[in-house]
Amino acid sequence: MSVKDDEAACRPLLRQEWREGRIAGSADDAVAMEVPLQIRVNGAPVAVVMRTPGHDEYLGLGMLLAEGAIETLDDVRSIRHCDEGADEEGEGNVLQVVVPEDRLPAIEKMRRTNLTGSSCGVCGRTSIDDLLAKRSSLAGRRETVASRVIEGAARALAAAQPTFSMTGGVHGVGLFTREGDLLRVFEDVGRHNAVDKVLGWRLRHAVTSGSLLMVSGRVSFEIVQKAMMSGVPVIAAVSAPTSLAVELADACGMTLACFVRGERMCVYAGAARIVSDS
Amino acid sequence: MSVKDDEAACRPLLRQEWREGRIAGSADDAVAMEVPLQIRVNGAPVAVVMRTPGHDEYLGLGMLLAEGAIETLDDVRSIRHCDEGADEEGEGNVLQVVVPEDRLPAIEKMRRTNLTGSSCGVCGRTSIDDLLAKRSSLAGRRETVASRVIEGAARALAAAQPTFSMTGGVHGVGLFTREGDLLRVFEDVGRHNAVDKVLGWRLRHAVTSGSLLMVSGRVSFEIVQKAMMSGVPVIAAVSAPTSLAVELADACGMTLACFVRGERMCVYAGAARIVSDS
Repeated sequence: MSVKDDEAACRPLLRQEWREGRIAGSADDAVAMEVPLQIRVNGAPVAVVMRTPGHDEYLGLGMLLAEGAIETLDDVRSIRHCDEGADEEGEGNVLQVVVPEDRLPAIEKMRRTNLTGSSCGVCGRTSIDDLLAKRSSLAGRRETVASRVIEGAARALAAAQPTFSMTGGVHGVGLFTREGDLLRVFEDVGRHNAVDKVLGWRLRHAVTSGSLLMVSGRVSFEIVQKAMMSGVPVIAAVSAPTSLAVELADACGMTLACFVRGERMCVYAGAARIVSDS
Repeated sequence: MSVKDDEAACRPLLRQEWREGRIAGSADDAVAMEVPLQIRVNGAPVAVVMRTPGHDEYLGLGMLLAEGAIETLDDVRSIRHCDEGADEEGEGNVLQVVVPEDRLPAIEKMRRTNLTGSSCGVCGRTSIDDLLAKRSSLAGRRETVASRVIEGAARALAAAQPTFSMTGGVHGVGLFTREGDLLRVFEDVGRHNAVDKVLGWRLRHAVTSGSLLMVSGRVSFEIVQKAMMSGVPVIAAVSAPTSLAVELADACGMTLACFVRGERMCVYAGAARIVSDS
């Protein structure tokens, strides 16, 4: 992580504090940075996301991978900030990705899907079928993860969120091995962005050992989608899953453990992959 | 609220519970519903959102208002579910909005902005200037709100979230008068959706008395944008603001109080509107 990335994650300011119906004074505070990022592919804008600046390359890679727009690092010719036409404040907020011509139909499909959803009607079942058509189920990945490893990952993630500690305003997501070793954590104002940064980092550095994605908040359909497209079979979270997150995890043979708190957790899908360590 | 809306907010399932490294049994649970909704304007898709089904009319109205695509209820000829071409599961997940022809440039601008951001470079300042060009500052709305009203709104919101109580998986947003009367609460898996439902409900029923938007989670730029475009001058939240949320609230004369917990809160913008009640 560069110094610039550290600095960019939050911004100091003065806040007014109230206690029991009266002003109690002013205090220094830090708020999580939120700045728009435009992602362009071969010159054409494909998305704008509100993100915490830093590690935008990983964010872009993770997002394109999750959407099926790229499949391997070979599908990306270059990825870098492009400040053409941006004023001083806009500098660093345009990410230019260059892909080979043969990826452009997949990019166009991603743009269209974000606008229209699946063509044959909008429902969760269609979305799940679409994903299973892009990537095969992870049911074949039979490695187990000990319940103690999941509990430990929740503790390790909580201890590795410096921006949350300062601001209370970001989500954290960590990638762990099946033995419980922490590979990388990212924080971001958007929980989907934090997942994209982790999985984009994994793609960029060709890390194959990540088996467990630990999320500080809730688990949506899109978070399961991202892990699935990256081939990470186990998702654990501190908070609740949504209905479609459970359905997708179940349909594609993934494990989903939520409300991981202390020595308790609730398993919503793929329970066979979790083992007792005694 | 119709019975259908109540039923649609969560879904029962069985979860496996773990305690201290062992399976402790299975238990009935409820998870928050998350289903895609496609929004079409005059037949053309403009967005897909992942939302908790129910009150989609308000969601659509709130979103279009926040984006500047409509300004009053007169800008909407009709808004209803359209199941043309949808299979059984997709039924109820396409919202068809019809607007007069003269609104189509604003709709097209909304589509384009979501894809490209602001044209002259992507930065927070540009986004704020764009919004101030669409709607004048709320600094002229000088009504005050007592700090005790804000504390009370946090308690009232916490007591009015039945889906959160069942699932732990949704955000709640409430609209209050400046005297602290609760007008309406909506819950949704997406916090931006919950804001859209509240503000769409307000537009639909021509409610003018809402002065305080109380949010169960964090406050992003987009949440401040939505309140601003609706003319609601005070936002309060249980959790943290982002940098751009504070900047926008400050730039457009709004009040932003966060970390509202018990008898404490922190004010990040527009402190002059909050008064001690003694």
